[in-house]
Amino acid sequence: MTTAHLTFDQTDDKIADRVKKMRSSAVRDLFAAATRPDVISLSGGMPDVSLLPQASIKKAVRAACDDQRSVALQYGATDGRKETKQVFCDLMRDIGVRAKPENILITSGAQEALDLISKAFINPGDIILAEGPTYLGALQAFSAYEPDVRCIAFDEEGMRTDLLEAELKRIGKGNPRLKFCYTIPNFQNPGGVTMSATRRKRLLELADEYGFMVVEDDPYGRLRYDGGHMVPLKAMDDRVVYLGTISKVFAPGLRTGWIVAPRDVLAKVNLVKQGTDLCGSSFDQVVVEHYFTDTPWQKTLQKFVQTYHVRRDAMLSALEEHFPPEASWTRPEGGFFVWVTLPDYFDTGSMLSEALEAGVTYVPGDSFFPGAAAGKNSMRINFSFESPENIAEAVRRLAHVIEDRLELYRAFLEAGAIQAPSASQPTD
Amino acid sequence: MTTAHLTFDQTDDKIADRVKKMRSSAVRDLFAAATRPDVISLSGGMPDVSLLPQASIKKAVRAACDDQRSVALQYGATDGRKETKQVFCDLMRDIGVRAKPENILITSGAQEALDLISKAFINPGDIILAEGPTYLGALQAFSAYEPDVRCIAFDEEGMRTDLLEAELKRIGKGNPRLKFCYTIPNFQNPGGVTMSATRRKRLLELADEYGFMVVEDDPYGRLRYDGGHMVPLKAMDDRVVYLGTISKVFAPGLRTGWIVAPRDVLAKVNLVKQGTDLCGSSFDQVVVEHYFTDTPWQKTLQKFVQTYHVRRDAMLSALEEHFPPEASWTRPEGGFFVWVTLPDYFDTGSMLSEALEAGVTYVPGDSFFPGAAAGKNSMRINFSFESPENIAEAVRRLAHVIEDRLELYRAFLEAGAIQAPSASQPTD
Repeated sequence: MTTAHLTFDQTDDKIADRVKKMRSSAVRDLFAAATRPDVISLSGGMPDVSLLPQASIKKAVRAACDDQRSVALQYGATDGRKETKQVFCDLMRDIGVRAKPENILITSGAQEALDLISKAFINPGDIILAEGPTYLGALQAFSAYEPDVRCIAFDEEGMRTDLLEAELKRIGKGNPRLKFCYTIPNFQNPGGVTMSATRRKRLLELADEYGFMVVEDDPYGRLRYDGGHMVPLKAMDDRVVYLGTISKVFAPGLRTGWIVAPRDVLAKVNLVKQGTDLCGSSFDQVVVEHYFTDTPWQKTLQKFVQTYHVRRDAMLSALEEHFPPEASWTRPEGGFFVWVTLPDYFDTGSMLSEALEAGVTYVPGDSFFPGAAAGKNSMRINFSFESPENIAEAVRRLAHVIEDRLELYRAFLEAGAIQAPSASQPTD
Repeated sequence: MTTAHLTFDQTDDKIADRVKKMRSSAVRDLFAAATRPDVISLSGGMPDVSLLPQASIKKAVRAACDDQRSVALQYGATDGRKETKQVFCDLMRDIGVRAKPENILITSGAQEALDLISKAFINPGDIILAEGPTYLGALQAFSAYEPDVRCIAFDEEGMRTDLLEAELKRIGKGNPRLKFCYTIPNFQNPGGVTMSATRRKRLLELADEYGFMVVEDDPYGRLRYDGGHMVPLKAMDDRVVYLGTISKVFAPGLRTGWIVAPRDVLAKVNLVKQGTDLCGSSFDQVVVEHYFTDTPWQKTLQKFVQTYHVRRDAMLSALEEHFPPEASWTRPEGGFFVWVTLPDYFDTGSMLSEALEAGVTYVPGDSFFPGAAAGKNSMRINFSFESPENIAEAVRRLAHVIEDRLELYRAFLEAGAIQAPSASQPTD
């Protein structure tokens, strides 16, 4: 249900092996379904760009049409414009990271950064560590280079470093196949959980001890609704490869992200980027630069935070009110997502058609595991895009779908056709 | 001289094997040098975007800031906006190709198209056919997937299909390793030559007979200064994979290209694009759509054509006037480039520092062959960006550098230290 494999056709005999194992994104596949007006989508990960003031957009675009036109319309450097890099240095300084323009490479969204890093570092069979579940776009980026992705479960304090250490012991110190650990420490996608300071410290110690790179993906860091700022991994260790994006603090339509990394890492990424897309959009980079220098973007960001805060609260309240006691879910302090875990015998993939019929979509949990190897009893639900009223209604609809299934399962359980449920862990 | 290999560093033990063989683009490396005000660059491949009317840019951008703002700022479909695809269908119709939006996938410039097609179809060791010399960005895109690129020489009628056939006989019919033939039939980069109608027909016959895909890269097709329109390969056979770009008819800074292909090909490309960058810039796609619907773009294109025509003539005249009889060069009917061949004993890579000192840059010919395996005695020179006066002056400077080397070589020849020159062929 959650993946679309390719059908046989004329060019099937030409296809590269790497593509045979690729899965289409369930989120992308749901894009079409979600445009039905009666369906409330909890499946996407879209910011609400209607919150962006038109005056800010016009101001940001002005220079690209005017005195910086010749730059905005022309090819640019592969690693990006220096002026736009400086803006990203300023954004990094706000969150406690000191970076110079030469430590920054601009990408076509953080998604391209994931592809480029994978392309530069992954040989087939190499070991990549990541939270499990993790961002499905990262799994897609990795999969093109055929690594062995090992998933580390999380709890409310983020990636379980005890399980990470156990996995590392199996891998062994100085294993040349071990390349990097990919983590989303703040308001993880899809988990919603945030890595504690103690775990961050431990992860970096283990990176040192076992010799792997740490890739810190931080799209949601500035969207915090409760609690205090957490120090980024990058601020704790300069060797960390940090991925930033404007997608959630400005606009994803401009496809602009950045990597902060030591220069030896950026040299490799620059080399692979030449062959991948030559350079990013100069036009978008000029617009981004001016958005962060000529407009009251911090006020706009506050509007994003306030709006999503209310929506998150609406979702958590609705879950409390409507979801059955058999379900558990995470309580994110920021970001876009809640991760719901149902009893082991649930299959959220097959349940999706019923949900769609009931007028609600979500992303089945197995999308967030390599090879859909786990997560069948879980789902990701998004609260950033719909109104609080729609979120409450969507959760109510979803609760009904789950309740219907539960009744069916209860009958199976009574008949002994399936096993009794075990206590659910968020990441089982 | 023409390639930059990576230096040893902290993360060198982590690097993927595919990167070890990658070469940095000489063009990109020359970017910095070319900004010295006393240097005239014949090395780039940049359109002269100063010819674009500001009013057109403003008109094109208006919708993206206004009523199409919510689309322009948001994530889009992986394969691109339908309205922008429709514009590309119209552009294709102009050149004799019938295409529907479902046969189009929008990319981040034609460079991304090359990467995606390579990612979807090339296994390590697979055979790719291409003109030799060919576009260095294509070689970079291919190299990430470690194919065996076989170069087919061209003459004034484009790729020599007799040599192609001989190579195909060595490869054998139905060889599963043979994937596609990459060609730039119009005003080839770097050769400047155009494939004749007879050769086009023959290429397609051979594709049928030997079972390979044809990838037609056509960035310059609309920039013709002499002669009549040539029917694209795509118009002769619908299975051809056609690559288009707005970079030379509008602006490369907006990084928008497109693939026209059968749906089974696009399904695979779409799948790999999800993991590569999720989707292209919605903002740029909205701007591109409105450029080609709301502005007098055909008049602007005529201005491009007239301007480049004059510059090409200036370059050909200067070559006639200043270059020594030992040099030969192509006479392009369109596009951006002239390909110069010097006697076999020349090394244009080592000559580049002398040229730079003399205030002129070009791209050494070996950049356009896989592994720099040939082309050491040739160079690519560009006529699209500089004024006719600068072009004439640059060619004069270059002639002096060549003349100095010739004197040196003549002395070596007389001393018997190097072999006598053979008759130069454009692509030897």
